[in-house]
Amino acid sequence: MAKRLDSAAQAMISKRIAKADLPRGFAYSSLACGLKKSGLDLGLIVSETPAVAAAVFTTNLVKAAPVVTSQLHLKKSRNEMRGVIVNSGNANCCTGSDGFTAATATTLKVAKELGKLRPTQILVCSTGVIGVPLRWQKIVNAVPKLVRGRGDSANAFAQFTRAIMTTDSRPKSAAAKFRVSGKEIRILGCTKGAGMIHPNMATMLAFITTDAAVSPRLLTRALRSVVGRTFNAITVDGDTSTNDTVTLLANGQSGARKITRDDAAYKNFCAALESVCKSLALQIVGDGEGAQRVIEVEVRGASSDRAADKIARTIANSPLVKTALNGADPNWGRFLAAAGRSGVKFNFERVDINLAGIPVCRHGREHAFDERAAHRKMLAPFVPVIVNLNAGRSAARVWTCDFTTEYIHINASYRT
Amino acid sequence: MAKRLDSAAQAMISKRIAKADLPRGFAYSSLACGLKKSGLDLGLIVSETPAVAAAVFTTNLVKAAPVVTSQLHLKKSRNEMRGVIVNSGNANCCTGSDGFTAATATTLKVAKELGKLRPTQILVCSTGVIGVPLRWQKIVNAVPKLVRGRGDSANAFAQFTRAIMTTDSRPKSAAAKFRVSGKEIRILGCTKGAGMIHPNMATMLAFITTDAAVSPRLLTRALRSVVGRTFNAITVDGDTSTNDTVTLLANGQSGARKITRDDAAYKNFCAALESVCKSLALQIVGDGEGAQRVIEVEVRGASSDRAADKIARTIANSPLVKTALNGADPNWGRFLAAAGRSGVKFNFERVDINLAGIPVCRHGREHAFDERAAHRKMLAPFVPVIVNLNAGRSAARVWTCDFTTEYIHINASYRT
Repeated sequence: MAKRLDSAAQAMISKRIAKADLPRGFAYSSLACGLKKSGLDLGLIVSETPAVAAAVFTTNLVKAAPVVTSQLHLKKSRNEMRGVIVNSGNANCCTGSDGFTAATATTLKVAKELGKLRPTQILVCSTGVIGVPLRWQKIVNAVPKLVRGRGDSANAFAQFTRAIMTTDSRPKSAAAKFRVSGKEIRILGCTKGAGMIHPNMATMLAFITTDAAVSPRLLTRALRSVVGRTFNAITVDGDTSTNDTVTLLANGQSGARKITRDDAAYKNFCAALESVCKSLALQIVGDGEGAQRVIEVEVRGASSDRAADKIARTIANSPLVKTALNGADPNWGRFLAAAGRSGVKFNFERVDINLAGIPVCRHGREHAFDERAAHRKMLAPFVPVIVNLNAGRSAARVWTCDFTTEYIHINASYRT
Repeated sequence: MAKRLDSAAQAMISKRIAKADLPRGFAYSSLACGLKKSGLDLGLIVSETPAVAAAVFTTNLVKAAPVVTSQLHLKKSRNEMRGVIVNSGNANCCTGSDGFTAATATTLKVAKELGKLRPTQILVCSTGVIGVPLRWQKIVNAVPKLVRGRGDSANAFAQFTRAIMTTDSRPKSAAAKFRVSGKEIRILGCTKGAGMIHPNMATMLAFITTDAAVSPRLLTRALRSVVGRTFNAITVDGDTSTNDTVTLLANGQSGARKITRDDAAYKNFCAALESVCKSLALQIVGDGEGAQRVIEVEVRGASSDRAADKIARTIANSPLVKTALNGADPNWGRFLAAAGRSGVKFNFERVDINLAGIPVCRHGREHAFDERAAHRKMLAPFVPVIVNLNAGRSAARVWTCDFTTEYIHINASYRT
């Protein structure tokens, strides 16, 4: 258990990105165009050569204009893209047809400034306040300088990670390397969110670049599967944004052979991608608004994956569970009660619960434990919780953070 | 709108119960048997003649022993009951077979002390900490005094309403009267919860008595339907307890004719019962842990009742919505985003939203409004929110309260 705590705690820390971590053939740029009151609010990632792209978008029915525009561009360009432009400070959501004008004008300008590209080769993301028209002229005016200012230094990347921040208290990035037939391949990612919505929204954006060469079909498969186990396995408050987007660009500039089959190289790629995404996901939870600790809710012994996932999510989203965790209170009855209202059928008299490695419930009843010792262990920045239904072989793991008074303070008022 | 605010605000206030409000033929008793550190923790309602009973129980898979025991007793006695015994301070949940011994021993003792009754004529409820064995000997020892001490005064009832409290900041009761063929019938109710779980759990209990004569079938039908529109339409934090119970005893002592058909008398009975239950439900929400205001989320224009209910509940349980309401922040984007992740399909560009009577969103876009005026209106103790999907004729209404820092304080620690 100690080892796992260490590796999880390490994954929660943003890695210092060095030049050697940067995938070949990508450039990053950022500047302040005036959408935020102060600070960087516009970022750009460019692949100097065509890159295969994959992306995962919000499942919220209410989709922002940039989400719909990016989905359209991916389709039109058959996943061969050249870059991503991102603005913070305004989500360009619930902005009607003007929103689409804004998103399209932005990609048009980037494509033009990069030289004779099609606008559909550019992805576009926005994060910030909902329902307020995006002053896109500010973005368009800034694009020439943004494009000219791009660079492939670690500092250019670091600036980009800051340009996409909204309520984040710190930038979040992670990197991984692996080899295919002796050639080194780099994967680099950064993210913002989803601590939720100050000023006004709840967006998680993640941008991943790699110099691997991967077929479009496998790249999409890899991203979907990894996102399911990482970004989609975290929850801060159960709310889903209108703008959530994860993009992955693979430009093949490592020079390693192309990954086109579900072979060892593909598996290594997936493992490296997962390590990057898991680190980013845990960094998001650890930076949840007001969060003091990250909780890993693991449901074991379920009759199906779906059942395990449903129970894990119900527990992880329970305000009662999350407040108990804030107080480092070994209040296992709340975990069992949350599982009981998840809609999944199980025999609660077979349930075992461990909090921070301490058995607190066996066969649905209290297991004698030292409350003080449990409390002390639960004060750690990473608290693993295991709920074993003893009813099957399926398992699921979800990460969340505690609910703090700070969360309420941050979210109680913005507009007024 | 003003009128509705007034009536809703009035319903939120506990009525002062007078002797004339008490249904004939019931007696109430309470005392301190030592389950709580201090204060009343044991209550009893007795019908001096056999009463028809109906009850609604928690849907949580994890059901406390008293819930299972009461369900069994109702079946065995074919809904002809004589009383309810309630303890606070311990939920008798996750206590294994000892829990059933405790519940059974309690009803056995009450039945014996009341004189030659069957234990299955007694319902039993518990509320308090989960997972800690109930020291039922304390209850059994106190029952003789509890039974002897019963009375039909307004004060005896008032004491009972205090004996069932856990984290409640005040007792909650409501009464109504109506006539059948000129004869007056009384309905009286009291409740505790469900502001959640300090010390350890989240139980809502409600006890309703009436001197109406109603057939078992109609009594059950009336209670189920009314509970669906009242107690089941409130949510404090989305957590469902292991012990939730609503009981209704009808002993016919008013002397009015028996209600056996779906006629005008039945409809009047349902209306009176609903006014009692709605008042109790709103009192619960208004006493939600740390709550500063009650929010009515009304979804209109949905394509089905189910869709309307799903959206209303998703909005009412969204921490982002509830924190915005705490800050009286007219942050309508959060309502729309919550609706969008409810799983219900709708066209968000047709959605209109009113906050506290002020149009803030039309056709899914911001409708110009005075932020300061909206903020002032949202500071009221009762805030109506209307989300109109403009897609059909179905509607649903759910009541909730805001999320406050006080909620976190109350729930963050108990055991340690």
